[in-house]
Order: sequence, then structure tokens, then C-alpha cells
Amino acid sequence: MLPGQSSIDAGLVVARRLLDAIGTKTFDGVGFTRAAYGEGEQCAHDMIAASARDLGLAIRIDEALNMTMTLQGEDPALSPLIIGSHADAVPQGGNFDGLAGILAGLACLAAFRDAGNRPRRTVELMAIRAEESAWFGAQHVGSRALLGTLDQRILDDAKRVDTGRSLADHMKEAGADIQRIRAGGALRDPRAIHGYVELHIEQGPLLVASSLPIGIVTGIRGNRRCRKIVCKGEYAHSGTAPRKLRHDAVFAVSELVTRMDELWRVIEDDEGGDLVLTFGRFMTDPAAHAVTTVPGEVEFCFDARSHSTDTLARVEHALVAAMNEIAVRRGVTFSCDPFTGDAPAAMDRGFQELLRRGCEESSIPAMPIASGAGHDAGDFAAAGVPSAMIFVRNDKGSHNPAEAMEFDDFVQGVRLLTWFVANEYKASRP
Amino acid sequence: MLPGQSSIDAGLVVARRLLDAIGTKTFDGVGFTRAAYGEGEQCAHDMIAASARDLGLAIRIDEALNMTMTLQGEDPALSPLIIGSHADAVPQGGNFDGLAGILAGLACLAAFRDAGNRPRRTVELMAIRAEESAWFGAQHVGSRALLGTLDQRILDDAKRVDTGRSLADHMKEAGADIQRIRAGGALRDPRAIHGYVELHIEQGPLLVASSLPIGIVTGIRGNRRCRKIVCKGEYAHSGTAPRKLRHDAVFAVSELVTRMDELWRVIEDDEGGDLVLTFGRFMTDPAAHAVTTVPGEVEFCFDARSHSTDTLARVEHALVAAMNEIAVRRGVTFSCDPFTGDAPAAMDRGFQELLRRGCEESSIPAMPIASGAGHDAGDFAAAGVPSAMIFVRNDKGSHNPAEAMEFDDFVQGVRLLTWFVANEYKASRP
Repeated sequence: MLPGQSSIDAGLVVARRLLDAIGTKTFDGVGFTRAAYGEGEQCAHDMIAASARDLGLAIRIDEALNMTMTLQGEDPALSPLIIGSHADAVPQGGNFDGLAGILAGLACLAAFRDAGNRPRRTVELMAIRAEESAWFGAQHVGSRALLGTLDQRILDDAKRVDTGRSLADHMKEAGADIQRIRAGGALRDPRAIHGYVELHIEQGPLLVASSLPIGIVTGIRGNRRCRKIVCKGEYAHSGTAPRKLRHDAVFAVSELVTRMDELWRVIEDDEGGDLVLTFGRFMTDPAAHAVTTVPGEVEFCFDARSHSTDTLARVEHALVAAMNEIAVRRGVTFSCDPFTGDAPAAMDRGFQELLRRGCEESSIPAMPIASGAGHDAGDFAAAGVPSAMIFVRNDKGSHNPAEAMEFDDFVQGVRLLTWFVANEYKASRP
Repeated sequence: MLPGQSSIDAGLVVARRLLDAIGTKTFDGVGFTRAAYGEGEQCAHDMIAASARDLGLAIRIDEALNMTMTLQGEDPALSPLIIGSHADAVPQGGNFDGLAGILAGLACLAAFRDAGNRPRRTVELMAIRAEESAWFGAQHVGSRALLGTLDQRILDDAKRVDTGRSLADHMKEAGADIQRIRAGGALRDPRAIHGYVELHIEQGPLLVASSLPIGIVTGIRGNRRCRKIVCKGEYAHSGTAPRKLRHDAVFAVSELVTRMDELWRVIEDDEGGDLVLTFGRFMTDPAAHAVTTVPGEVEFCFDARSHSTDTLARVEHALVAAMNEIAVRRGVTFSCDPFTGDAPAAMDRGFQELLRRGCEESSIPAMPIASGAGHDAGDFAAAGVPSAMIFVRNDKGSHNPAEAMEFDDFVQGVRLLTWFVANEYKASRP
């Protein structure tokens, strides 16, 4: 049974109070800092746990320190639905990225509590650890440890940017069972999870541009990435190196970037494909460059994201082919670090349709939307758990204190999440 | 009368000994360092003066410390010909850039001495001060002070890169009459100079590529330059900023660079125009850029050189027009420091023809060649003194210790210079 609006309002009071309180506790003077497996994240977990206890939810902490707050369903034979999100935040980040999702789940469960009824299926609200890559250069640590998909090497190789100490060290210090994590394998069987749903602020401008408060996520883009590519040409006097005898790294890399920009246009505009392309770094060498020197070296990086594995492969192939062609024609060389990547993760079609119906029945203006950024939901989907995401409109991007989620939009997200929890068990699954 | 080969050989002995001796004295462990108005330059001037004295040349030092070594001509009614070059060198530079020109002149005058004859016209060999911009960010100080074309502001504004002290300070310390220099105006009347000739290593690869020892310079390219242009877009999450809503500074500047590269191709290949274009610096902001961040800012610079004032104006106009168009379309801004420039300087056509005949008569393989870099000869030409330059083949560019002038090529240069001095008075001037 769907809790009424007054019960949802009661849940929202809990969420709002916690949002403000955790924000106050973790404000650093500029933004909000909640280190993964560190003080700020733990502070948020503790405050969320206290509220969950007040609501009578059962609390369990797993070996990776993910926290599960359970509202027992009416039918114990049904496998549980997880509402998940993360409480960590990048240094001087925003208050909403991650935290809003946990608090939306808490508001939803509080609404059921207030209404005095239960969902048919058991709902587990999870505060997942260490989603942000900003601290250890490794993302989604909590969900990957949970699902048995964590690359064990990062436990010792990944160092926290500020302390220089390893992920394993910080996990141990926070209380994790590091021996169990090192052993690998899932902490719980993904096949025993009915589904996963996550509410998150949108980190792009599409909902603002479309004047819609809610997005129903269609999938999470995969990526192909190269952290470092070096183009070497030949330094020379800018006045004396003629066009046909120069090996100019800036012309070479600019041409490469411009050609990839054009390929992007073709894929998006002419073919209707999904892609974002970024060359986030483009650097001549400050020790050698000058106004009157032909630039002999450029260092750059490459990030492509798409919902289509084929598109990612095609773009990587085009980049490499263009580098080879430009290298020969311009007499430069390109050397690349290894390419890395995550596969795209599609959100469950049945869940998407259900969310669409929820918006319709609850009169919530919404649109389908792709997630460019990665989320724990992608790891659940990759592990075979049917997954869904709800995006809440948010201005000014994320990972900065200027994140600007309107609470009224959050209210719409909580209404949709609550409708989903109340109705998902009825849906026929494909 | 042209001195015979044995006399030229005698002059070459003097030149070679000085080249080695000055190189030994000013070697810094990596390259050759001769600071303008500093120790290394003074050391070279002193050693050159000693040799000139041995040859019985009259020595005069002007208020800017340029040194003139005079070989009296047969006909005192004729205005003098200047053979000029500079003795300063960039930090860890090469031994030949500048110095070779003075020593070629000394070898020439020594050859006349050895032969026991004189040229018809008085020849003044000048060691000109502070040609390199590497020390004070201001080039051709000595020749501009001499000719009255020095921008007075640089005397106090230009600071030496390593000491931080002003050009005026260092000039005074070296013994210059700084009050006279501040007063402005030419130190000698350019109209009383018959002509100016300078031998210099080529700083580009054309003579090596053409397998020719000697180039006859047709002109010195002018330039239009902007030391700093900043393109500002908007930082954003690389996965969530879609193509049509992003303001990507790397795509914007890469497109600009690629369009200018194409314009260069058109001007050079399709129209046969003269141009070199360089974007020597292209930097995203190390404090803000990242693999997964849309780059919100790029700083770059621009250097165009051409023999044609029209081409320079056209290229600058095209750059500004492209920036304006790209700014509107991509939602970025460009802000430019003031554009600066020197006008192109043509070498005297009569002198060029005379040098061509000299090569023919002396069986010296040569080609006409444009100078991309600036030289004191450009300032003499701009002041109305008919000027000429002889380039000597040199591998591996300049401004580095790897400069690789073969002494045999230098010999050809000295032979041509000596032929020129012996014959120029006969030429009919246009």
C-alpha cells in the first residue's frame, strides 16, 4: 500500500533534518568533505544509523562496512529490494551527491513507518561505502566488495590522495574485515537480490535545460579511457622551421582532437548514436615551450563514454587509426598508456517502465535520461541484479559546493521512489 | 683586390683559434653562455679586441658598448661598409650563433692584411651588443641603440631573467653611457653608412636539406605575435556534459589551431605565399584539469612570420575572426594580450645579386633563402641601410649546444664575404 502524502511528508521531515545536520557536520569551510572510509563518511553513517534506529529499522554492517537498514516486508518469501546510495563526498564537494539517495530511501521507509504499513517485499536501504574515486583513485569500492567484483590489487596499490596510505590501511582502521575482503568473492549472493534502485542528483544540465524535475535513467555509460598519451615531435626555432620540415606536436594533437570532435558530431547528429568525448588535459611542456619555439611535445588524455560497446570500440579504433596516420604524415610519434574501461550498464527495462507509470500516476514530470557518470547501480546491473535509477534535477554539476538541488525536486523523487517500492512487486518482469 | 686563397687561409687560422678559445672560455658544462652586457659577452669582446689589435685594426667602443674594428679603405671619400654580428649567446646555447659572423669578418680583414692590400671602401667590423632576447626579453639592443630605434622603456622595464636587475643597470655596470642612451637618437647617422653585411649560421634545416653550404638571404621575416591568449569555457563532468551543452576549451582551441594550420597550407601551397605559424604553448590548467573533467580553460600563444606585411595582417585578421566565430558557436571566450610585431625587412636586391655573382665566380654552391629568425641586419635595413646576409649551413637548429656548423662551410662563407668586400664598390646600385 502506497503511504499517503502526509506520511511521505513525515518521511521528508526526517530526510531534511539529516541532510542539514550531516551537511553542518561535514562542511569544511568551502564545501562538504566526506572521505571514503574516513571521518566524514563515518560521521554520515553514524547519523543515518541513529535515525534508522529511531525508525525501528534493523541495522547490519557488512565486512566492507556497507550499512544495511532493513524494513521487513509482508511476504518473507520474496527476495529483497535494495535502495542504495553512498555517503562519501569528494573534497570540497556538494552535500547532495550520494547523500540525497540514502536520505530519499530513509524518507521512503519512514513514510511506510508513519503510515503503519509495510511493502510486500522486504526493502533494504544500503549506505554503500567509497563510491567516489577522488580519494583512492578507485571507485565503487563498497559495492564491488559486496558483489565480489573488486580488483584485489587496489587494496594495497590505491593510496589516499592526502594521507598517502593504502586503501587496505584505511579500511582496516575504519573497522572493515580486510582478511575477508582480500579473500574475494561476493559478500552476499547477487542472485538473492530482487532488484536495486538508486536516487541521485543529475550531474549534467539536461533536466535543467528541459525544465523537468525527474529523469528515469535508461543506462549508465561505459567508458574507454587513456590517462596519458604523449605526442613527440621536434623542438625548433619558430621562425626557421618551415611547414614541410617541421614536426609540430601542437598541430598534430590539435588535428587529432578536431578529427575526433568531427567523428563525435557524425555519431551523434548523423547517426543518432550515444557518445561523449573529452580530452581533459592538453599540455605542452612548461620546461621547454616558448612563444618562438615549435612545440616538440604534448601530453594529453582521452575519455570516451557511451551506452554502446560498439561505439566505444569504434571510437577507440578511430583514435588509434588517426594517431597512426597523423604520426606518419607529420613525423611525430604517439605513445599511449594502456586503455582502460568499464562496460556500459543498461537499466532494467521493466523497472524503467514501472517508473514511467509511477510518474504518470503521481503526476510527476519526467523524461528518460542517460547517466554519463558512473554509479553503484552500474555494478549491481553488471552483477546481474535488475537495477534502476531516478535522477533529480540539479543545477551547476556535481563535485562542487554549488550543486543546487531544489528540495521540491527531491520531494518529487521521494514520491516516485515510494510509489515504486509500493508497486514494484505487482509488475510482471520480462 | 681580392686576397688570394693563402691569405684567406691565414685569416681563417685567426678565426678558428678565436672560435675555439672563446668557446673554451664561455663553456658552461653543457653549452656556451654569453650573457648580453654580461661576463660571457664581455669576455668574447675582449678576446676579439686583442686579435683585432694584433691585426692593426683601429678599435672604437660606442656609448652602447658596440665595438667597431676598422680597416681603412683606399678611398677615404667612400662611406664605410659595416660587417656586423653579435657575440652574446643564449644560456647553454651554441658557440656559432652570432660569434661566427664576427669571426668571419675578422678572417676577411685578416686576409686583406695578410695580402698586404686594402679594400677600396673602409670596412668596419662591428661586434654588436645584446642581440639575443633570451636575457632581457628584448632583442637587438645594441643595433637599435646605435640606429636610434630602441624603445627607451625597456631600459628600466626589461629585467635580466636570472638576476632580475634592469637592462639599464647591467648596461651601466658593463660601462655603457646610459645617459646618452636614455637621450635617444642614433649614435651614428645611418645615412652615412654605405651598407651592412652579416654572416650567420642558418637556424633552420633548409641548407642541410638542400645539401648546399651557403644561403643568400632574401629578407628577414616580420612577425605578429600574441604572447598570451586565454580561452575560457566551462569545467564540467566529462560523462555528463553533452555535446550541445558543453563549453570545451580544448575542442575550441584545437579547432582554432587546425583552421589556422589549414590557412597556412592554402597560403603556402595554393598561393605560393611565405608564412610560418606557431602555437608554441597550449596548456590546460594543471590545477583544475583531469581525465574526467571537461576542460574549462586553455592558455596558448601565437607567432606568425612572413616576408609579406599583407600576409601577416591577413593571418592576424583570420585568427581574430576564427576566435570570434568559435566563441559564439561553442560558448567560450577568448581574451588576448596585445599583439606585437616587427615589420618584414627585405635584403638589398643589389647586394643579393652581387652575392650571387660572388658564388658563381668563386664556385660556391648556394641558394636564395629566407630568414625566419630576426637579426641585427633587419634593424639596419629598417633604418634605411642597404643590408645583406650570408647564411652558413648548420645542422640541429640554434640556441642549443648541438649547433653543428662544419668549418668547411664556414670557409665558403668567409670566401664569399671576402669576395663581396673586394667587389661591392664596383657594383652599380639600383
